[in-house]
Amino acid sequence: MELSIVKIGGNIIDDESKLASFLDAFAAVKGKKILVHGGGKLATKVAEGLGIKQQMIDGRRITDAETLKIVTMVYAGTINKHIVAHLQARGCNAMGLTGADGNAILAHKRVHPTIDYGYVGDVDAVDASLLTSLLMLDKTLVFAPITHDRKGQLLNTNADTIAQEIARALCSTFDTSLIYSFEKSGVLLNAEDDSSVISRIDPVYYTRLKEQQVIFAGMIPKLDNAFAAVKSGVKKVIIGRAEQLPLLLEGAAGTTIVHA
Amino acid sequence: MELSIVKIGGNIIDDESKLASFLDAFAAVKGKKILVHGGGKLATKVAEGLGIKQQMIDGRRITDAETLKIVTMVYAGTINKHIVAHLQARGCNAMGLTGADGNAILAHKRVHPTIDYGYVGDVDAVDASLLTSLLMLDKTLVFAPITHDRKGQLLNTNADTIAQEIARALCSTFDTSLIYSFEKSGVLLNAEDDSSVISRIDPVYYTRLKEQQVIFAGMIPKLDNAFAAVKSGVKKVIIGRAEQLPLLLEGAAGTTIVHA
Repeated sequence: MELSIVKIGGNIIDDESKLASFLDAFAAVKGKKILVHGGGKLATKVAEGLGIKQQMIDGRRITDAETLKIVTMVYAGTINKHIVAHLQARGCNAMGLTGADGNAILAHKRVHPTIDYGYVGDVDAVDASLLTSLLMLDKTLVFAPITHDRKGQLLNTNADTIAQEIARALCSTFDTSLIYSFEKSGVLLNAEDDSSVISRIDPVYYTRLKEQQVIFAGMIPKLDNAFAAVKSGVKKVIIGRAEQLPLLLEGAAGTTIVHA
Repeated sequence: MELSIVKIGGNIIDDESKLASFLDAFAAVKGKKILVHGGGKLATKVAEGLGIKQQMIDGRRITDAETLKIVTMVYAGTINKHIVAHLQARGCNAMGLTGADGNAILAHKRVHPTIDYGYVGDVDAVDASLLTSLLMLDKTLVFAPITHDRKGQLLNTNADTIAQEIARALCSTFDTSLIYSFEKSGVLLNAEDDSSVISRIDPVYYTRLKEQQVIFAGMIPKLDNAFAAVKSGVKKVIIGRAEQLPLLLEGAAGTTIVHA
């Protein structure tokens, strides 16, 4: 049975009309499906409105206790329920979840030798049995990027990682495709030219692209995540523009990551 | 099979130590269970922080578009996920939901000849099959007082009503007890004396108590809800103090509402 897991980021969430088009396309996808959404600018806006300062250390945003409250409100409340209600309006029986709900995604607070990231979670386990049961009830799952440690602590968690961990947990049960949508048409040979999409990358080509510094900075963790997923048995990982979702699923747009 | 549905209000949610004690007691309840929570003062605090004025008409709070955003954030985000995470920490496999999730509770925007309540929902249908499936997966359901109209609109919805509608929908499948917790020890013969709890009320006695004006104001819709529930087949409705949950379930505290 086919399962499509789609991750959307802030660039779609922040743009009401882009989000509406994406939800049209996502609602029309056949088979079982899971949407994982990131944050977007609303959390920053709400934090500013409430006079909560973003704590930055070495250019990284730190999830302190106040920031965690904001992201829980905005991600699990505003954004998640907005998406669920709008998928329901499109005839897609969506159900919103965080990792705390049903203990779907268990995590621990990140431990780092020098940086205290605050309430940031690294994933330990996905309850594949629960997610399979919900999918078999014909629900489309919509995950907010929040997990918990089962000790009462909610944790801010990277949405790319959540999508990948869910894909790895479910790929032995479903023919799983993982789609990372972002603001470009795919992985580009020339970062300045959106038409220079690399249609297919395997591990050997990936090493070469990194050596040539065609791929750098923020793309590296994204692609590392993608390769980890295909290595674990995810059928394919596709990176591309959310607005092109139907084409991405057909393999007619974006970059497909394959395992050797 | 026994099902306990417990509604808690703002007086518990606003008090961290009362909430913790309640969650201890709730986590220890045997059998299937559902928690429905109300709002509390946090929504007002967040609205004030963001400079959103509460609109009041004839002494009633109106859920305008901005207020709906706030209650969605606070009820479905902050409060719901706080409760879920803290039940998980107590070994209770909680799953948080709004009425939009899985189309669990379908509602319509309230129509009133003279007052526009704004985005307030009146319940049309509870998906008993979905809730039963989730309970049979051994999940404890935690409902925020938000529903939707399946046209993309979220709706602020009375938590007492949600608890009652869920109880009515599930009472043919489970031996259902509905517990309305509030700030008093039960329905009181003398509103000034918290020890004057009436232990049992049937419809005849209820009529008499209303005639004698022992029961008035805010208690009337609460008791009307309770009688509607027992009339529909809910085994018992108990009204009392959240802190006494174990005693309420044993019938050793609070007021039990029975059908004739």
